[in-house]
Order: sequence, then structure tokens, then C-alpha cells
Amino acid sequence: MNVDGTPFRTIWLAEDGETVEIIDQTRLPHAFEVISLANCDDAAQAIISMQVRGAPLIGATAAYGLCLALRDDASDAALAGACDMLLATRPTAVNLRWALEEMHGVLAPLPAQDRAAAAYGRAAAICDEDVAICRAIGDHGVALIRDLWENSGKSRPVNILTHCNAGWLATVDWGTATAPIYVAHEEDIPVHVWVDETRPRNQGASLTAWELGGHGIDHTVIVDNAGGHLMQNGKVDMVITGTDRTTATGDVANKIGTYLKALAAADNDVPFYVGLPGPTIDWTLSDGRDIPIEERDEAEVTTVTGRTGRGDIVSVSVTPEASRAANYGFDVTPARLVTGLITERGICSASAAGLRGLYPDRAGS
Amino acid sequence: MNVDGTPFRTIWLAEDGETVEIIDQTRLPHAFEVISLANCDDAAQAIISMQVRGAPLIGATAAYGLCLALRDDASDAALAGACDMLLATRPTAVNLRWALEEMHGVLAPLPAQDRAAAAYGRAAAICDEDVAICRAIGDHGVALIRDLWENSGKSRPVNILTHCNAGWLATVDWGTATAPIYVAHEEDIPVHVWVDETRPRNQGASLTAWELGGHGIDHTVIVDNAGGHLMQNGKVDMVITGTDRTTATGDVANKIGTYLKALAAADNDVPFYVGLPGPTIDWTLSDGRDIPIEERDEAEVTTVTGRTGRGDIVSVSVTPEASRAANYGFDVTPARLVTGLITERGICSASAAGLRGLYPDRAGS
Repeated sequence: MNVDGTPFRTIWLAEDGETVEIIDQTRLPHAFEVISLANCDDAAQAIISMQVRGAPLIGATAAYGLCLALRDDASDAALAGACDMLLATRPTAVNLRWALEEMHGVLAPLPAQDRAAAAYGRAAAICDEDVAICRAIGDHGVALIRDLWENSGKSRPVNILTHCNAGWLATVDWGTATAPIYVAHEEDIPVHVWVDETRPRNQGASLTAWELGGHGIDHTVIVDNAGGHLMQNGKVDMVITGTDRTTATGDVANKIGTYLKALAAADNDVPFYVGLPGPTIDWTLSDGRDIPIEERDEAEVTTVTGRTGRGDIVSVSVTPEASRAANYGFDVTPARLVTGLITERGICSASAAGLRGLYPDRAGS
Repeated sequence: MNVDGTPFRTIWLAEDGETVEIIDQTRLPHAFEVISLANCDDAAQAIISMQVRGAPLIGATAAYGLCLALRDDASDAALAGACDMLLATRPTAVNLRWALEEMHGVLAPLPAQDRAAAAYGRAAAICDEDVAICRAIGDHGVALIRDLWENSGKSRPVNILTHCNAGWLATVDWGTATAPIYVAHEEDIPVHVWVDETRPRNQGASLTAWELGGHGIDHTVIVDNAGGHLMQNGKVDMVITGTDRTTATGDVANKIGTYLKALAAADNDVPFYVGLPGPTIDWTLSDGRDIPIEERDEAEVTTVTGRTGRGDIVSVSVTPEASRAANYGFDVTPARLVTGLITERGICSASAAGLRGLYPDRAGS
């Protein structure tokens, strides 16, 4: 997508064809800084420090991390060591494991001298495949936005609410929840996005607002408390969120607070859609209540990071020193509250039958 | 209530019997500072700057502001001028107008030389009446908490979720939503409070957490996104919030985000109660959708105020400079989502019949 008129992906090769470059997402929205990853340690550190985040982008960064490792030493031991180091950066990230296993499977059988070139080829393909999946989500999802626009007599922009950042910054390009929005923009369908700030880490206020603004998409930041009121007053035409994991029955685990927006959408007859790549479906689970919910550091709740008037980025405490906090990272939206799932293969109901229909090759018997 | 072992109200007279003292709530939770109001201008400024906030406390502060004015000049002109100045501090505050009309009604007929003493007397009575109302809300509401405790076999603390600050800091003492909690604590019923941080102004994280901690009540701060997940997982036994205005049919306007918690409570069979003094019922309204919702400065959304590591209190920006924000102050929770209203006269259903039953003298014919 564009950053103030210039097209970017979230990860790419520098002019030397080997060094990897990324956007330092920890500096957003206050500064747009590109940093170079010169070796595998740099790549691991970028994942650990969350300079890159979002499951698909983490996978792509790990794939390129392996390339950087093999450029220096393509032995079996180096390949295994780099895989182990990269896998340990974010132990629960599904795409991370998938990308490393994929790379290892391609590279291990090759003679050492061929591995680096093959790694760069496979890493580029992983990125391109992610872009294609996200673009396909956009191509399917845009039909929903187009319908809303036409049903309004093309009289006003389509108002879409989103939560957290399932945008191009979380993927290689396009995003998942945002892909239909970017495609709508490309097709000149006017859209306006309500951006939940998404406490505690504020990915909406800092990342989604930044990427929408950079691409020229009209948007308004709101606190997480506001969505229900907007829906009660007809100011939201549809909700689109991403998901971290979806059960085979269509229950959706996503950033904490998603469930509250789904409840409000159902109470006000606002369609609630989830954009997801097929690989985030967990075919082994049939009940969202079985999805483990990560508890994170309470400092994310007790502090907020932002930019001072002088331009410094600082963290400030917002609670009494003696008060403790709890920090659940995700919640589960039951399938009954989800109008539909937008995948790279099309749109289906949030149900076992709906998902089986789109993924007969992956759904269990 | 107590501040680290010492009982306080939110407003009181200094040892000279005339100067008014308040807690500077803009400094909480980072510093506990008492400031003196020496004249009517000081009182007006305290309201404008939100050193005092909460409808009952604003009313009490205005009443004492009149006392300070009349101490300097008790003429008819001074009385009228002080009333006008104080009324203009927060134009939409119902209790502010009520307190000033009450004071004016008592004072205007008196000879000038008797007015100051009478004003102090009536202001003290207004404060005491507010304390009595809040205490009565607590005495009625504690029965609900006691029932939950006994139904659990007294096996664990009762978990109560609250939103924003309808605590003693918003009143003269006890609070409205918090009064049942403080009475439960007094009766040795173990309680634990989930405190919504309540963006954008963070009254939960900064005020409710502080006052509960100061009184020794176990509590945990959460982001506004978290309540639904807690309710899905059995971690909330009841919700109690306050209200800014309640219709004659039981629709409840309260801080933005209240509606989302009411939806989650209904979806998980968690009782949802609202604590309110009778005067906040608007007998002229029968539909919550007719309650005007204040739109506030977007800077409350785009910035967060907190304490740096060095102890300075600063505001930081959390959004891109080019992004705009919307800031709706309140939302309306329809009566169908409210389990009951806890008033100073008892508990009733959130309905016209319920409210008429408790307030036959006030309900319209």
C-alpha cells in the first residue's frame, strides 16, 4: 500500500539484493523509519522487539532471517541453528513455525552452496503468496462494501468499523480485515473507517490509523468504548476485523474487545465480518472456549506510550502505583455473532458447514 | 471514605470554619493534594478545571462557592452575580442548577447580614443530604452483594465490575455505584472490583482505582475491552455503574462504553445494576434515544495523560498527527439490558412501573 504516495510492502530486499529492509513499527505512528536487517540476529531481534508483528509478517521475516543466516554459513548446523533461534522469538506464532518448516523442507535436501539462493527464492515466494491471499480476501470482500454502497443509492461513504490492526502492516501487503477496504478504495467506492484505538497496545490508533492515512483512506479514531453508540445511531454500515485463530465451527479468537463489538453489531443489525487467510483456521478445534487466551504483562495496561509535545516518545503510567492490572490479550467471538467469514477462497457463513464448503481439502472428515 | 486510613469527604470546611477545602482530582492518582477555595472565583475555577467533578460534588461546590461570595458581599447584586457565574461553569450539569436554585431560594428572602451564615448552613445540609442519599443507595444495594456471597457458599469474594467513576470522588461521600461496595466492605463481605480504565478520560484507572485502593478494597484495573471476556469466563458476578441521566422508563445514559458492558452482561446472564439518586431521573423523557449525547474535544482521544518515570505528569499523543478523532461522551443503555436500579428509596426494575412504584410523588401522571 502507499505511504504518502509511495508504494511499500512491509518487508523487501535492499538494492544489494540481499540485505532485508523493514518498517520499524515500534516507531509508528510518530516516525516512519526503515531499518536494515544485515544478518539473522537482526531478523530475530526485529521479531522479538516487535519492529515487525502480525502473523504473516513474522513468518516472512523469519524466512528472510534464514536467508541472511545461510548467506554467512550454509552448513546443516547453521541451518538448524538459525531455525531454532528464529522459532524461539515468538513461541506461539503459527505462521512463524509454518514458514520455518517450509523453508527447512526446501533447503535441507540441497547442497550447501545452493541453499542461500534457494532460500531467497522461497522467501520471496512466501511473501508473494501472502500478498496474493490478502488480495483475494480483498477481492471477495469488496463485494460486500459495493452492495452497501449501492443499497445506499451511492449517496454517502460506506462506514466500516475495525478493531486492532489486521492491516497491511500485519501482513506483507493489503492486510486481511483491511484488504476489502483498500480494494474498495481502488475501485473508487467511497469508504470511511472508524478505527478502534484498541487498548492496551493501541494498534488501532497507532498502526491502522497510520496506514489508512498514508494510503489516503478517510478514517476517524475512536476509543474502544464508542463503537456501540455509533452502531445504535446508524453510523456503522459494517464491521470487519481480523482473527488470530478461527475454529472449524467459526468461533473467532481476535484482539480483546472484538466480542463486545460483535455483540453491539448483533444488537443493531450491523453485519459483522471477519477477514482471514485459510491457514489461520484451526481444524482441530470445534469450540472457541478451548482456545487458550494469553495473559500479558500488566504494564501494557498501566502505561501508555506516546509522543510528547517536544517529539520524544515516552511511556506514562495511568494507574495508581498500588493498583494491579489484568491483561488478557484476546477474546473469543462465538460464531452466532459473526455474519460471515471473508477468506481467500470466498465468503462463507461462520459455521462448520460454511468452512467445509470452502475448504473441503483441509476440513477434517 | 478513607484515604490510606484517614476518613475524608470530597469537600469540607477548613479549621477557620469558612474556607472551603477540596481534593484536587486533576492530580489523582499521581498525587493527593488538598487545595483551599478562598473565594467564589476559586470555587468556579475548581469546577471549570475539573478539580472537582461528578454531578453531586459540583452541586456541593457551587453551594459553598455562594457561601464564599456572600462572605465578601451579601447584597442582592452579589448574590445574583455569584449564581450566574457559578451556573456558567458547567452549563449542562443538572445538580449545579438545582443546588444554586435551592441556595438562592433560601437566601434571597433574608436580610443581607443573615445571608452568609444561612448559606453555610444550607450548603452543609446539601452535603449531608447527598451523603445520606448515597449511603441509602449503599444500604439497599448491599443486599444484592450479600446474596451473591451467600449463594457462593461464602467461598470467594464477590466480583463486581464497574465503569468510569461513580465513586465517592464524584459525590460528597460513598458514591453511587460504589456505595453498595463500600457498605459490603463495612459489613465484612469480601469484594473484588474489576475497574474499567474508561477511556478517553481514564476516570476508572485514575479515580476509581485510587479511591478503592485508598479505602482498602481489592481491585484490578482492566482495559475497557476486557469486560466481555471476563464475563464469558465467569469472572464477574455483577456489574454496577452510575448514570448521568435516567429516563422515566429506565433507559440509562452513562459514560461511553456502558452499553457494551450491558450487552456482555445480558449475553452471559450477569446481573447489571445501576446506582442512582432519584434526582438524576428525568421524568420528562420516555425514550433514551432522546437524551442528547455530548461530543467532546477530540484531544481527549488523541492524547493520554500520565506520570513519567521521573514523576512529571505529561500528556502524550497516541494517534498520527494527520488523523482526526471523534469523542462521544456518553451512550444510552436501553432498559431491557438493565437488571435493576438501585436508588435511595430501594431497588426497582428499570421500567416506568418500577420507577413509579418508588417515586409516586415525582412520576408524572
